[in-house]
Amino acid sequence: MNLRDLGEDRLLSQLLPHLTLGKAVVAGPGDDCAVVAIRGLGELLVLKTDCVVEAVHFSRRTKPFDVGWKAMMRPLSDFAATSAVPQFVLVTVIAPERTDVRWMKGLYRGLQRASNRFDVSIVGGETSSTSGPIAVSIAAAGFVEKERWVSRRGGQPDDDLFVTGRLGGALKQRHLRFVPRIVESRWLTKNFSVHAMMDLSDGLGADLPRLARASRLGYTVDVESIPLTRGATINDAITEGEDYELLFAVSRRDSARLMQRWRKKFPRLPLTRIGSLNRISKIENRKLPRGYTHFQQPR
Amino acid sequence: MNLRDLGEDRLLSQLLPHLTLGKAVVAGPGDDCAVVAIRGLGELLVLKTDCVVEAVHFSRRTKPFDVGWKAMMRPLSDFAATSAVPQFVLVTVIAPERTDVRWMKGLYRGLQRASNRFDVSIVGGETSSTSGPIAVSIAAAGFVEKERWVSRRGGQPDDDLFVTGRLGGALKQRHLRFVPRIVESRWLTKNFSVHAMMDLSDGLGADLPRLARASRLGYTVDVESIPLTRGATINDAITEGEDYELLFAVSRRDSARLMQRWRKKFPRLPLTRIGSLNRISKIENRKLPRGYTHFQQPR
Repeated sequence: MNLRDLGEDRLLSQLLPHLTLGKAVVAGPGDDCAVVAIRGLGELLVLKTDCVVEAVHFSRRTKPFDVGWKAMMRPLSDFAATSAVPQFVLVTVIAPERTDVRWMKGLYRGLQRASNRFDVSIVGGETSSTSGPIAVSIAAAGFVEKERWVSRRGGQPDDDLFVTGRLGGALKQRHLRFVPRIVESRWLTKNFSVHAMMDLSDGLGADLPRLARASRLGYTVDVESIPLTRGATINDAITEGEDYELLFAVSRRDSARLMQRWRKKFPRLPLTRIGSLNRISKIENRKLPRGYTHFQQPR
Repeated sequence: MNLRDLGEDRLLSQLLPHLTLGKAVVAGPGDDCAVVAIRGLGELLVLKTDCVVEAVHFSRRTKPFDVGWKAMMRPLSDFAATSAVPQFVLVTVIAPERTDVRWMKGLYRGLQRASNRFDVSIVGGETSSTSGPIAVSIAAAGFVEKERWVSRRGGQPDDDLFVTGRLGGALKQRHLRFVPRIVESRWLTKNFSVHAMMDLSDGLGADLPRLARASRLGYTVDVESIPLTRGATINDAITEGEDYELLFAVSRRDSARLMQRWRKKFPRLPLTRIGSLNRISKIENRKLPRGYTHFQQPR
């Protein structure tokens, strides 16, 4: 069997549970970021790597600045998902020897502009040659207060599900220029009890089942309520991915206050309740509209 | 100009000094590891990424276990160079979709065996597809006491230069099975004042000038004293690389006591004085034997 037939989720689930994790590891493989406790420190250390590969995540025609921006912002979006503050990154560039130095400088301008946006320091760089496509991998480290760390796992039955921004249509342009929702995420965990959260990178249709599965819950979604980018269809919003918006669960009794305070704090960024979590019930999941088979809870 | 013409050292030196480093950054680009101060913590956070690429660092015939072992041990060797204790790693695998799952499992067995050797936890994994060769990147995090951190920069005039083990001939087999000198490095900084240290990955002829340059010093080396692997020539020892032994500088007055205590502590691992650091002097550098042009201090 090869990697395509197996798929990344199943591959990692086969490889990773066998790993011996130390007691310090609060969240390991399967969450947006790794979260570990450090002796003598009140905060948790948060680690994440993410890579973009030519012909997979960007094309030869993509501007190197945009490649750098996206490569940096993707892992920082995982920090937003964890409500953590990124501080330090290391950059690995795997590129053919024929790569033009100007391309590399453009890449680094994008990397630096993106990291500066969140006061993140690029503290190291490594390059390696390859005979194949260019790959840029970012390793990021940062911290989160013990009481503000959020994973995908903490969703409760009857929690309301929210998404920030609008979904769909990101592949046209926005996926190269997005700004991770770190400010919003930090505000959320400062003011509300966020039970579970993740960033939407593979599309709501792939990502929401991951959050629900991690929380051992089912869900219902009112697909008509999904906030759409102008010109995008519901199907685009569910399947395209690359939105880098936040999906999160809060107690139903906090919902009204959250919506009210959010509108004051972030008047230009929509916050939308799209559904709720529930105890797993095959009957409820059958009620989901046909055509969105991604939305069925596989158990 | 392309990357081959420029070379990695010069490329990174062009890209990285423009980066804005926060005040917390103790060692950044150019050192073996990035070292950063964390508010509220007595120890320094140490970060390193390193990648191996098919057809550059390993071949299609290399056993996946060996690829995993080497991929993991290379960045851990940089922790040895810094006298830091690695604790957590993230694994990025970029591989074609046709890659056999058995190959991936072999890779992970090697990664895990290597990380277990030093009680390091693999806390996350990511895979991405590619149309090109396989690449495995490891991002490692750990800690070092503020008073035991070592860089390449602290060499003093008249310091003696030492190397552990034997050099040359690593490419035949040893480069796939080496054990980073973490135990030895930690013992060194517990018992001696090590002024400068690095691990030998590109060969003494490339690496020693880097240490000297970082310390703003010149050096003299007695090439006849270089400890050779059985069957290797002096030229092999200087140029081949992949030794992953330690090169370090200590005060001349500590040398005798160091040699004595080392022999008791590590009776099976040679420690050899190969030369010394000095104030930069073109005359002295000209005295170096012809044929080892790598050894001239370029200023």
